[in-house]
Amino acid sequence: MRANDFKGILEKNKSDFALFYTLDQEPNPNMFYFSGYRGVGALIIPKKKSPCLMVPKMEVERAKKSMVKQVCVMNKKRFFESISNIIKKRGILSKKIGIDNDNFSLNAYKYFKKTFKNVKTKDIFYDCLKLREVKTNKEIRILKKSCNYADKIIKKVINNFKDFKTETDVSGFLEYETKKLGLDIAFSPVVASGSNGSMPHHEPTNTKLKKGFCVIDFGVKYKGYCSDITRTIYLGKASGKEKQTYNFLLDVQENIINNIKINDNCGKMYGDCVKNLGKYSKYFIHGLGHGVGVEIHELPNLSLNSKDKVMENMVFTIEPGIYIPKKFGIRIEDTVLMGKKANVLTKVSKDLLII
Amino acid sequence: MRANDFKGILEKNKSDFALFYTLDQEPNPNMFYFSGYRGVGALIIPKKKSPCLMVPKMEVERAKKSMVKQVCVMNKKRFFESISNIIKKRGILSKKIGIDNDNFSLNAYKYFKKTFKNVKTKDIFYDCLKLREVKTNKEIRILKKSCNYADKIIKKVINNFKDFKTETDVSGFLEYETKKLGLDIAFSPVVASGSNGSMPHHEPTNTKLKKGFCVIDFGVKYKGYCSDITRTIYLGKASGKEKQTYNFLLDVQENIINNIKINDNCGKMYGDCVKNLGKYSKYFIHGLGHGVGVEIHELPNLSLNSKDKVMENMVFTIEPGIYIPKKFGIRIEDTVLMGKKANVLTKVSKDLLII
Repeated sequence: MRANDFKGILEKNKSDFALFYTLDQEPNPNMFYFSGYRGVGALIIPKKKSPCLMVPKMEVERAKKSMVKQVCVMNKKRFFESISNIIKKRGILSKKIGIDNDNFSLNAYKYFKKTFKNVKTKDIFYDCLKLREVKTNKEIRILKKSCNYADKIIKKVINNFKDFKTETDVSGFLEYETKKLGLDIAFSPVVASGSNGSMPHHEPTNTKLKKGFCVIDFGVKYKGYCSDITRTIYLGKASGKEKQTYNFLLDVQENIINNIKINDNCGKMYGDCVKNLGKYSKYFIHGLGHGVGVEIHELPNLSLNSKDKVMENMVFTIEPGIYIPKKFGIRIEDTVLMGKKANVLTKVSKDLLII
Repeated sequence: MRANDFKGILEKNKSDFALFYTLDQEPNPNMFYFSGYRGVGALIIPKKKSPCLMVPKMEVERAKKSMVKQVCVMNKKRFFESISNIIKKRGILSKKIGIDNDNFSLNAYKYFKKTFKNVKTKDIFYDCLKLREVKTNKEIRILKKSCNYADKIIKKVINNFKDFKTETDVSGFLEYETKKLGLDIAFSPVVASGSNGSMPHHEPTNTKLKKGFCVIDFGVKYKGYCSDITRTIYLGKASGKEKQTYNFLLDVQENIINNIKINDNCGKMYGDCVKNLGKYSKYFIHGLGHGVGVEIHELPNLSLNSKDKVMENMVFTIEPGIYIPKKFGIRIEDTVLMGKKANVLTKVSKDLLII
């Protein structure tokens, strides 16, 4: 946790403490980022005292393994009352509370206001996102390792490709190899063969792999940090035209990566990519890339109208694609780390592999 | 989709249409329930016209495979404006809109209000949950199959147990077998050996499996519907006392299942379980069970203070447990379908298996 930077956010927002919560199985990314805990509960970070986690009885042992030293038991039925009690007990001021409006539901807010009647709230969601956009050295070490693991598994899948009969054989193998290393997947892998490839987020099916391009989009979570890589391979006999299209997209992708400079505008980068795709630009139907960290999609946002700027120690993807409806899809994606120039962290060969 | 029941919700809440949305990768369960679509986008269900999905360009092909016939492209940057435009185009009234306050963030609401200035909203979250609590015949067929798959995979893991060295070997195998069948996992499997077992939601580690009880909590998603089963096995040589504790818990679990009757109060069922656990009751640190459907946790809620009543065609878990901090954990869980009495859908043997 970057305690000092976070203190700055509380000061800027004139807030006495920050409150993050998770009520279901889905971890709140900011709560995880600042605590290392990903279960149900609440995280309180006061401006002046040490942070505190409040979790259901069944999660106490797990919470004690997080970065937060102080762990209290909460009453799940009286969630915000428990928080209020602990705040009073610890003598923390609560005139103004920083909350994450993007991860705070209307219903939770209703109950929150019943307990914290005369308290003002300030949305610190965007400030937290901004804080997470530039990575610390420790985060960079973890992200490099995360990309490393993704590479290893992608290579293994490619080496074993002849054994797979269906898309789910492939995605299952990707997930199994991930789990065997004690890691999590960063997102549900995409394995999209033939005409399925024209859906960028196609869910793998257990019918026979189709001939033609096969898009494999995959990433792991290592110590909570994501990696993201896409390789498109070819099943069967590729025509000259198909090889040409693939290599054209590869040129576009590498050209973008080689030309990223500190301070580049991310919206303009997207625009340049569209320009470079020429006649294929109308078949490029998603953003050029996104930041990668504790979430698979975070800042910077490399798409139309984005005002984000490239900064040193950002980690993001570059992933142009061509999707011809009902015919095929090709996507080539790397996770890069911005230094003086962009360093590719995902190193699996991008030469078209024909299987 | 249960169009007629849903119409009743809109009428009861005097709403012209219902609006559900998902902005990130995490699908909104109500949106999935009523559409079968689980990507980014919005679902509009008018009281009088047919429902409509609005999705980003990249998801159009996927959305067309859902239950909703009408699919429109949205502008992600102007999310709620896109919705407003389409509503106007289709001549749908929008004086009062039913929304899901539990899956509507403060930030989304802020943008929503900028577009829908003079529109009232009504929270239909709980009505949707209630609608989903009792399953249709079609849902029951799917849930039975989902439990069937979970059984098959648990049996396979038990038969192969001698090959596993770590908890992640086991959880990885569970996930791989799931994927190979073209299914999803319903939640991150728990494999908790030895003292790890005292954390009900322990995340599997890749260190050597510990001797003693090993809790395996697992479920799949088949056609979007969850199953949930926990078996506790024993690694090594179980003492008489340990066997006794296991069989005591098993008696408690079976006793509860055998005595469930229509109209039983779920809070009282939890209380009865605590009573039956006797001296172990202080080591029972979570609820007795929960409904299972498109979400792994839904209504009814079988825990302290719950006012839910058991009804025919509900599907829920019964999962008492004993957790001695830093020593061990035992949990035995089945998914049951309520008919005249409770029918166990997860059928793997509950005799203590010693490996």
